[in-house]
Amino acid sequence: MTTTDMTAADAGSPVRNGVDTATLFATLDAVKQAPEAARFQFRARNEWVSGTHNRSTIADYFGVGEERAHERTFVFDADHPAVLAGQDHGPTPAEFLLQALAACLTSGLANIAAARKITLTEVRSTITGDIDLNGILGLNPAVRNGYQQITVRFTIKGDAPAGQLRELVDQSRARSAVYDVITNGAPVAIEVDTP
Amino acid sequence: MTTTDMTAADAGSPVRNGVDTATLFATLDAVKQAPEAARFQFRARNEWVSGTHNRSTIADYFGVGEERAHERTFVFDADHPAVLAGQDHGPTPAEFLLQALAACLTSGLANIAAARKITLTEVRSTITGDIDLNGILGLNPAVRNGYQQITVRFTIKGDAPAGQLRELVDQSRARSAVYDVITNGAPVAIEVDTP
Repeated sequence: MTTTDMTAADAGSPVRNGVDTATLFATLDAVKQAPEAARFQFRARNEWVSGTHNRSTIADYFGVGEERAHERTFVFDADHPAVLAGQDHGPTPAEFLLQALAACLTSGLANIAAARKITLTEVRSTITGDIDLNGILGLNPAVRNGYQQITVRFTIKGDAPAGQLRELVDQSRARSAVYDVITNGAPVAIEVDTP
Repeated sequence: MTTTDMTAADAGSPVRNGVDTATLFATLDAVKQAPEAARFQFRARNEWVSGTHNRSTIADYFGVGEERAHERTFVFDADHPAVLAGQDHGPTPAEFLLQALAACLTSGLANIAAARKITLTEVRSTITGDIDLNGILGLNPAVRNGYQQITVRFTIKGDAPAGQLRELVDQSRARSAVYDVITNGAPVAIEVDTP
């Protein structure tokens, strides 16, 4: 959301869509006063289990000037299905990528709606990613490894005209961290330690 | 992995690193004969819960010519932590993105090692993403929404010289679906239905 969106809702109900707008505005004000508070580092740790099965742990991060921990440690298994020579102990990594995008767009949307005094009753989305595995299998150099097309379909209900509900998605997309990375790319450095 | 890698290991042990190489090679041969079998569509469904809390479900996909279902339905909650005006019911979507990349690189690595007859004893990674939330908060138009830098640090142990262990990571990166999307971007279409 933008600063203007926030200010516009300042006089409204403090909690809407489960969003404590007073806290949200206070957070924004705090960051305006101390921009360096917004420097975060998110992290995940991954451990190989067997074959394509591996396990990620998400526990700590840096933000608002200090090391922080989530309320609990989150653990996720990833694997390939049997048809891709795995054992299906979890979603494929490529499915986790899709899920991250849908979740990011939806998290932002609820905040933006609250700031605009729109009460939501339902937000659902289906996200699909088309991929030709001739790429990652190394069978066709003309085929990319990743998704050729990702499509997100939202269903949104709330107490605003359809046009305003659509604009919530536009604004969420315009301020989504995951959408930015997936559409524009981000630099990735890989280091290897072989003790 | 590449076709050449696979062929080179054909005479070796059929199971290494938990990878059934016979199945892996059979899959590759099948796709070589029928390239359209490699057209997959992965999917996730997301439902808003409250505030920045939402829930994703990963259940079905299309591949090898037909609709398929995972062994079970995988469900994941995403949220923002309290410091970002959420309730920490799950990792942030941006953390799920990191986890997807680490998992993708690791899944591929075990397959490639098996094809190269390298037995792995340990593969661990830590992935970090540096992000300045002045971007998504709309406080500084010069700051991007997404990660400014992602770094993956692998620790790998196995029965091969360090150089060969490092080459496993190089090849995994060269054939990673998630690495491709995150570094090169992918087209995302968003549709909104407001019934």
